[in-house]
Amino acid sequence: MTLSKKEMLKQNYFLETEQVLPCEIGGKVMQLFASSSQASSIEEQIDGVINDFSEDFLTSIDSNSDIDLDLILRKFSDSQIPIQPADVESYFQYLGNHVVAHSIHTSSPRFIGHMTSALPSFVRPLAKLMTAMNQNAVKIETAKALSFCEREALAMLHRLVYNFSENFYAQHIQNNQSTLGILVSGGTVANITALWCARNASLKAKDEFLGVEKAGLAAALDFYGYKGAVVIGSELMHYSFDKAADLMGIGTDSLIRIPSDRHNRVNIDALQKAVANCHAQNLLIIAIVGVAGTTDSGGLDSLAEIADIAQHAQVHFHVDAAWGGPLIFSQQHRHKLAGIERADSVTIDGHKQLYLPMGIGMVLLRDPQLASAIEKQASYTMRKGSFDLGKRALEGSRPGMALFLHAGLNLIGLKGYEFLIDEGIRKTKYMADRICSMSEFQLLAEPDTNLLIYRYIPEQLRELVSKKQLTEIDNQLINQFNERLQKMQRQIGRSFISRTTKTATSFGKETSIIALRAVIANPLTTEEDIDAVLNDQIQIAQAI
Amino acid sequence: MTLSKKEMLKQNYFLETEQVLPCEIGGKVMQLFASSSQASSIEEQIDGVINDFSEDFLTSIDSNSDIDLDLILRKFSDSQIPIQPADVESYFQYLGNHVVAHSIHTSSPRFIGHMTSALPSFVRPLAKLMTAMNQNAVKIETAKALSFCEREALAMLHRLVYNFSENFYAQHIQNNQSTLGILVSGGTVANITALWCARNASLKAKDEFLGVEKAGLAAALDFYGYKGAVVIGSELMHYSFDKAADLMGIGTDSLIRIPSDRHNRVNIDALQKAVANCHAQNLLIIAIVGVAGTTDSGGLDSLAEIADIAQHAQVHFHVDAAWGGPLIFSQQHRHKLAGIERADSVTIDGHKQLYLPMGIGMVLLRDPQLASAIEKQASYTMRKGSFDLGKRALEGSRPGMALFLHAGLNLIGLKGYEFLIDEGIRKTKYMADRICSMSEFQLLAEPDTNLLIYRYIPEQLRELVSKKQLTEIDNQLINQFNERLQKMQRQIGRSFISRTTKTATSFGKETSIIALRAVIANPLTTEEDIDAVLNDQIQIAQAI
Repeated sequence: MTLSKKEMLKQNYFLETEQVLPCEIGGKVMQLFASSSQASSIEEQIDGVINDFSEDFLTSIDSNSDIDLDLILRKFSDSQIPIQPADVESYFQYLGNHVVAHSIHTSSPRFIGHMTSALPSFVRPLAKLMTAMNQNAVKIETAKALSFCEREALAMLHRLVYNFSENFYAQHIQNNQSTLGILVSGGTVANITALWCARNASLKAKDEFLGVEKAGLAAALDFYGYKGAVVIGSELMHYSFDKAADLMGIGTDSLIRIPSDRHNRVNIDALQKAVANCHAQNLLIIAIVGVAGTTDSGGLDSLAEIADIAQHAQVHFHVDAAWGGPLIFSQQHRHKLAGIERADSVTIDGHKQLYLPMGIGMVLLRDPQLASAIEKQASYTMRKGSFDLGKRALEGSRPGMALFLHAGLNLIGLKGYEFLIDEGIRKTKYMADRICSMSEFQLLAEPDTNLLIYRYIPEQLRELVSKKQLTEIDNQLINQFNERLQKMQRQIGRSFISRTTKTATSFGKETSIIALRAVIANPLTTEEDIDAVLNDQIQIAQAI
Repeated sequence: MTLSKKEMLKQNYFLETEQVLPCEIGGKVMQLFASSSQASSIEEQIDGVINDFSEDFLTSIDSNSDIDLDLILRKFSDSQIPIQPADVESYFQYLGNHVVAHSIHTSSPRFIGHMTSALPSFVRPLAKLMTAMNQNAVKIETAKALSFCEREALAMLHRLVYNFSENFYAQHIQNNQSTLGILVSGGTVANITALWCARNASLKAKDEFLGVEKAGLAAALDFYGYKGAVVIGSELMHYSFDKAADLMGIGTDSLIRIPSDRHNRVNIDALQKAVANCHAQNLLIIAIVGVAGTTDSGGLDSLAEIADIAQHAQVHFHVDAAWGGPLIFSQQHRHKLAGIERADSVTIDGHKQLYLPMGIGMVLLRDPQLASAIEKQASYTMRKGSFDLGKRALEGSRPGMALFLHAGLNLIGLKGYEFLIDEGIRKTKYMADRICSMSEFQLLAEPDTNLLIYRYIPEQLRELVSKKQLTEIDNQLINQFNERLQKMQRQIGRSFISRTTKTATSFGKETSIIALRAVIANPLTTEEDIDAVLNDQIQIAQAI
């Protein structure tokens, strides 16, 4: 029997009017906390229900239920916390019917529009173990082995990127004065952390001056004689850099966005000029950012050329490789990241192309002492000289996500990740070829990696496309059509492709192009699935 | 058979020298990604192993294994990612022997030194479900029902704190222009987010000026005619405010720490003077912070008096109730939070006294439009007018932790949380009474809630304690003794109490006192467990 939340709550209120005694509440609550052997009935019961939900969810081909947002939001309009503990079975039924049933099938082989994917099966039992252990990675007193396990996993990725000597890693891997990387909740916090370290290191304490950390940004710029501070990178930098610039007090207008070319790479000449310009204006360049995998189309900056500029200007070089970092696993494709090993800091997301659950980002640091620039202490925790990981981090208490990272690196391994990366790029080429062969579609850029941007062309305009005679108005019509197509496809829920707006295309900078955006990372996605997604779009377009 | 990681790796290298064919790697990896029905053998196998680990772990009475840190860190000294995928069974055996075996039993009834506890059993299967669903809460396209579920859970807590009208909640709960709260990875990000909103709202765009977000802090202070910007609160503010002050560019010296009294409450007169002083100096007060549950001893500021000051000064009033917020569930104790309903923003941690897994913090916002001060957009996501939760957040991609929050509020309910809060405080009083009755110990402050600070007194000094004749040197000896006692107790691992350093005690501000710090939040902790922990300390002290 399926209970709606209202009915479930009614049950509660009913109990309430019957005046449940405090000791009964206590008994109910203590039952929830009983250790697993005693509570086997509750936990096993939920486990069974959840395994059924999960299996249905994970084997679904559709990307989504077709329920309207207007309908679903009404199901979540209750701002009262139930007075009595709800019945566990009823609640999980409610969860299945209202939340799980209308969640996005991020693991579906035909949900190929965002940076999500099916995950390896070991992450699911591991999530349960992580929650059972409930370590708090902020300090050694609440995360003993896990602190060292986390350091090992981060050192592995540091070595993959920087490849320093055996001796370097022996010296730093478990040295409590060294920080090879910081595990964070995601790429945004990783990027913010990197720029925070860079800012504090460039404006550190000197002579009488206490440094930006204590004295603040205005005093620090003043002491060092700068007129302002900026961060420079491609116009395709992730919006987390806006957050960082805002948060750090330099303001988003001090985030200098350099134009990118048709291949989504930052224009190196323009970058160099901007750097010279900032120096001439006496502006501190906190960091130059290279993007290894733009969010909108997977483009990779020419990192080696940016490294040259940063090195020459003696400026912190940060690489946002949240998406593209794992290309380094591939013998065939790692050359696209050449220069990353010269970065001072590198962001990589575990929940993207390391195929781990949401909530795992990291920043790797070339200099194991850099993070001392943001170190904080407190008398009840994070004492100097301790192994407390929270000393050098934006976040405080945080879960033992390192378990997933460590397991992924070991259970998938170098060759396993190489296979996953190579397969994604191979299938993306397949999709690009299919698109080029079909008159219904237009490929908007040759894919660098495994993101693909293209668009649907309504029939009456196809001839103009092939003759390259589209006017601005034609493009606007095509834009409207593609926006509608993407929304309808999403709503119907058989398959999913996202959309983005591109300005740097073969149509020139003046024309905004609404693009369909495919992300081919899911190992379960086959060539047949790709065909099915494209055919779904054709079918929907014909009905528009 | 138990394989060390080295042996496991050796197996891998052995496979490597045998030249595993690419297709074999592919087969192995695809097996890991097979959906649960096909992969039942792998997933069920791991599930079984993990259930055994978890049960042992969760039923353990000891707080910890007694392994030395020096020994354990050597187990994690391998910076090479294995070339081949490791054998799943061997890896999980390794995990059990090396990580799980030497992790902290945060759920042990005798681990009563940090803000961790046993958790209700439903969180474990729910963790598995969350990972199976792997929603990304940053945007509606990757988190459909979950976005609304998260908004509902936050609205419930908002109502618990602010208790606005039914109509208010009907209007805002699922309105995409309103933000009643932001779910974040933890209290630190919540506090930073609150101050970020406050800073941006006080220095917003006006006339020709673009606001602090775009123009930066120096220009904003200049435009508005301020000489600087500060945050004011108790000296016992959490160290996350240092992070916030540093990150936001005002510098930690602009975090004005007002002395607290023996009861760990901020001195209201001194606070008022500081506010007047800042105004006289033409400094912008970004926020006045009230602490509801200091990290070191659970002390609660007089929030209503701080609210008066903030209101009079027209300054943003932030309450850090990361720990103490859930007192509001208790009819008996909620009066200690009086004034919290006047805060502009409130931090609460789900992973503390809401008994949810690590990684759930939140900031509640009185004004549903306040968070527009930090709003960001991007062309590929987080479009204006969408339900994308990432528009107004420090973090970007993040997991569906709202599932836990929603489940906790429903399955534990108002009365269930009240029971948990009341029980913790009742047992803390029991412990305080026991300590007062034993000559071995000295209670350092009457507990406000469920944190308790005390110390062990070596036998030869007990008479001086009862006569109140301790000298500075005596106190130093006692300090050394207690530090040693705490470290030994932690190392032996039968039970656990943390330690902190207190300056505001009955000994006066000049004397630093090392205190033992108990946190009584675990529902599984009984009076017998409390006796056992104290007896463990006596036994260890006798051997020192």
